[in-house]
Amino acid sequence: MRRFAADRARRAVAASLRAASSYRSAAPSPLAPAPRYPAPPVGAAALARTMSTAAAGTPPVSLNTINPKVLKCEYAVRGEIVTHAQNLQQELQKNPDSLPFDEILYCNVGNPQSLGQQPVTYFREVLSLCDHPALLDKSETHALYSSDAIERAWQILDKIPGRATGAYSHSQGIKGLRDEIAAGIAARDGFHASGDNIFLTDGASPAVHMMMQLLISSEKDGILCPIPQYPLYSASIALHGGSLVPYFLDEETGWGLEVEELKKQLEEARSKGITVRALVVINPGNPTGQVLAEENQKKIVEFCKNEGLVLLADEVYQENVYAEDKQFHSFKKIARSLGYTDDDLPLVSFQSVSKGYYGECGKRGGYMEITGFSPEVREQIYKLASVNLCSNVSGQILASLVMNPPKAGDESFESFMVERDGILSSLARRAKALEEAFNSLEGITCNKAKGAMYLFPRLHLPQKAIGTAQAAGTAPDAYYAKRLLEATGIVVVPGSGFGQVPGTWHFRCTILPQEDKMPEIISRFKEFHEKFMDEFRD
Amino acid sequence: MRRFAADRARRAVAASLRAASSYRSAAPSPLAPAPRYPAPPVGAAALARTMSTAAAGTPPVSLNTINPKVLKCEYAVRGEIVTHAQNLQQELQKNPDSLPFDEILYCNVGNPQSLGQQPVTYFREVLSLCDHPALLDKSETHALYSSDAIERAWQILDKIPGRATGAYSHSQGIKGLRDEIAAGIAARDGFHASGDNIFLTDGASPAVHMMMQLLISSEKDGILCPIPQYPLYSASIALHGGSLVPYFLDEETGWGLEVEELKKQLEEARSKGITVRALVVINPGNPTGQVLAEENQKKIVEFCKNEGLVLLADEVYQENVYAEDKQFHSFKKIARSLGYTDDDLPLVSFQSVSKGYYGECGKRGGYMEITGFSPEVREQIYKLASVNLCSNVSGQILASLVMNPPKAGDESFESFMVERDGILSSLARRAKALEEAFNSLEGITCNKAKGAMYLFPRLHLPQKAIGTAQAAGTAPDAYYAKRLLEATGIVVVPGSGFGQVPGTWHFRCTILPQEDKMPEIISRFKEFHEKFMDEFRD
Repeated sequence: MRRFAADRARRAVAASLRAASSYRSAAPSPLAPAPRYPAPPVGAAALARTMSTAAAGTPPVSLNTINPKVLKCEYAVRGEIVTHAQNLQQELQKNPDSLPFDEILYCNVGNPQSLGQQPVTYFREVLSLCDHPALLDKSETHALYSSDAIERAWQILDKIPGRATGAYSHSQGIKGLRDEIAAGIAARDGFHASGDNIFLTDGASPAVHMMMQLLISSEKDGILCPIPQYPLYSASIALHGGSLVPYFLDEETGWGLEVEELKKQLEEARSKGITVRALVVINPGNPTGQVLAEENQKKIVEFCKNEGLVLLADEVYQENVYAEDKQFHSFKKIARSLGYTDDDLPLVSFQSVSKGYYGECGKRGGYMEITGFSPEVREQIYKLASVNLCSNVSGQILASLVMNPPKAGDESFESFMVERDGILSSLARRAKALEEAFNSLEGITCNKAKGAMYLFPRLHLPQKAIGTAQAAGTAPDAYYAKRLLEATGIVVVPGSGFGQVPGTWHFRCTILPQEDKMPEIISRFKEFHEKFMDEFRD
Repeated sequence: MRRFAADRARRAVAASLRAASSYRSAAPSPLAPAPRYPAPPVGAAALARTMSTAAAGTPPVSLNTINPKVLKCEYAVRGEIVTHAQNLQQELQKNPDSLPFDEILYCNVGNPQSLGQQPVTYFREVLSLCDHPALLDKSETHALYSSDAIERAWQILDKIPGRATGAYSHSQGIKGLRDEIAAGIAARDGFHASGDNIFLTDGASPAVHMMMQLLISSEKDGILCPIPQYPLYSASIALHGGSLVPYFLDEETGWGLEVEELKKQLEEARSKGITVRALVVINPGNPTGQVLAEENQKKIVEFCKNEGLVLLADEVYQENVYAEDKQFHSFKKIARSLGYTDDDLPLVSFQSVSKGYYGECGKRGGYMEITGFSPEVREQIYKLASVNLCSNVSGQILASLVMNPPKAGDESFESFMVERDGILSSLARRAKALEEAFNSLEGITCNKAKGAMYLFPRLHLPQKAIGTAQAAGTAPDAYYAKRLLEATGIVVVPGSGFGQVPGTWHFRCTILPQEDKMPEIISRFKEFHEKFMDEFRD
């Protein structure tokens, strides 16, 4: 497994590496795999190759000479299990009867269109027109595009200097599009928003990196992150050389986020010499699917205010709420409703076109809204944005569209709503069907997905399965995921990639396979799981 | 000026910052502004505010607490002068008669379409169709799109799993598109290329950052960079905490790159304890416009091979060669023609859709081709790519198009060639006109732009002008650029943003204003310059 090979290589070349954060190594880490498992042969072989090359002469680049932060970084969502799945897929293409299934089902990553979700027609019409503005002058265009999409494309082009969709934009993004996003935020929250506070980015990930780059100087800088967490955070913190300060979500209470736990972990980190800079909250939760209650959010805001932390609010699933008793509230709305202004609390909200009902992952659109930073610090954030010139303009346009979709009275409104509600209600049904299936099985318990796109069921594995996994040098949930893939073609991510209470085992599974496939997937899954339990039952 | 304010703040808060690279501070730096100029009042005021805030209590984020590498990073292409220009533009919009010109001419950045260059029709047709694949099934589409664009869109969609242009792709980019790019590289060079070696990225900048992140562990790691250089390199090295090891291009010989100079600087760096990891070569040159000769390139390859350096070849201007006696050769072609294989030399070639005749900056497409890295190191590069999931799919498609444009016999071929050659020949004429204009003036000398999109004229400023600039706390070329902007609306970047031989002064000016505007721009420039010289002549 990649994780173990990297871990082993890390230890072996320790002399040439910087010391790992003393904080992380002192605490029992919920992220790192337990080091007592022996490394698998493949890792050792790779290591031996590396070592001998290094000893032999002067290879310009080897694992010994590259940035140790890169080695340390892990990103399980696209890790070993996915590479294995891609290899099986190639095998299937060559020899369709070679495996006990006829397709790979990628439930590892929130990538709706890869599993057949159709893009929202109106959004694509507008993008298509903006890509080829010459169409707007032609009468035939009206036969192919809805009239409000044509009108919207004109409006967008008028916001772009010189109507040049092929030009670098302002490094924060096109001003007129940022203003439109701000208007969408204001309509959502009922509080003022400004386009000057928006930084458009290629999806939310670069925005997260930008903030980590700003806030982290060394391993003495800590970032409070939920466990389980989306591994972008652990990866970005590792790449920037900081310390991830974990706080545990409470599985018993539906992945509850308790402020007492935040306080406890903050104090523990401080007692170890860590300066905690920021708190990451993912709401709705990834991989855990919970939706925070307003009262809970208020306490979190007060906590950040009192402790002097930046609140990094990952709100990319803001449209993905399935429980009828739940509603999304942005942290900015909560902070403003408490009376806190721009002067009181540095707050960053991340949003993406990859999620919601639109699921436009390939377009790489997103933004962060930053409030509560001084002009001097904002200037530094702007400088970071400017080094990459700007985010892609199609993604910028799409971000402005998802924050201001068609309105009642627009020609496309009805068909748009049919598409939107069709996707969201189907996602809710799929979440429920999967959750019920998981909970019907021996050795699995699963909280409801109230939002987002994932379930994070817990595996109560027989001791014999745990022992077998450990003997194979792999974490028990990684072993389970590998066996699941090889038996069914279903790709899930082991819980160890997200972090979990030590000694517990989980996996993350998206709710994204199309509905007509769901019965068969569930039946394949059940069949596998029952056999697995039969094989290992204590 | 931003640079000076940052510099001053840096010194003042030095106690809380990591020590700057001893190498860079020991050597006379061609990049940093001379520290003897007094800081301007604005910088001091900002600093005082910061200091008092810091003293008053616990601001979560201030210049004292953010990552000092971010403070250290500078990116002049979008720096102070551009912010000033944007403010003037807003002033013009409010009050069109308030300034001695009626528009701002952004010659600061290679952004052709912002100055009126039209996108290539065929490329945009294909992108428009791929954004809205439903069009492909409609007969009316043939009235609006050329038939080979329709055919190409089908081919591209067939390369994308599930035809899902809205899905995250493989983290290196869509395999079929990478294969197409590899075929384009092979056709260009006459040597094999593999899609497995291509990493598609959002423009070339993220690819450069990825390599710097891989290669730099600390300030003891050095990267050889040309001076003058494109400031992405100095910015990225600063952000990753490495040391820029400068080598000087020889202005006397048309910005020649001498291997003797490389050797000298390498040895000097090594004597200071720097491990030099890589050599950056920009060919055709930015900001200097030279095109390297084949013999010269061979020596550079041998130098990297002998010294164990990674060759980072910025080849984004490969289509922009204007001198009839010059031709672009990729470094990979040169290395292969010398008989070096994948095992001999780690080599990275950066390419972008932002340059060439296409100039599609806003699309953020690009790639790097990496060869000569071990499987273990490649795996680490892949991991870095995977943390950001993938680059934008429209940019990926466009990268495959520019590397495989229409061919003879295709319906669009003739009109495509008219557009392409029209742009390239016009760029050549504009480069010549600007260069002749600069050379016609007292106190300016300018090498020919044989390639790329810039001229980098040298200012031989009167001592009185230098003294006035220094008294105002600004570098003399920054002072000149500011005065030029305020008198003419023309935005250029001071040479100090790129680095230059200490005591010499330059500016970078793109050749991108449209041809019909060129006579007036030249006349405005001449008028300003003559007055400036009259004002300051010793």
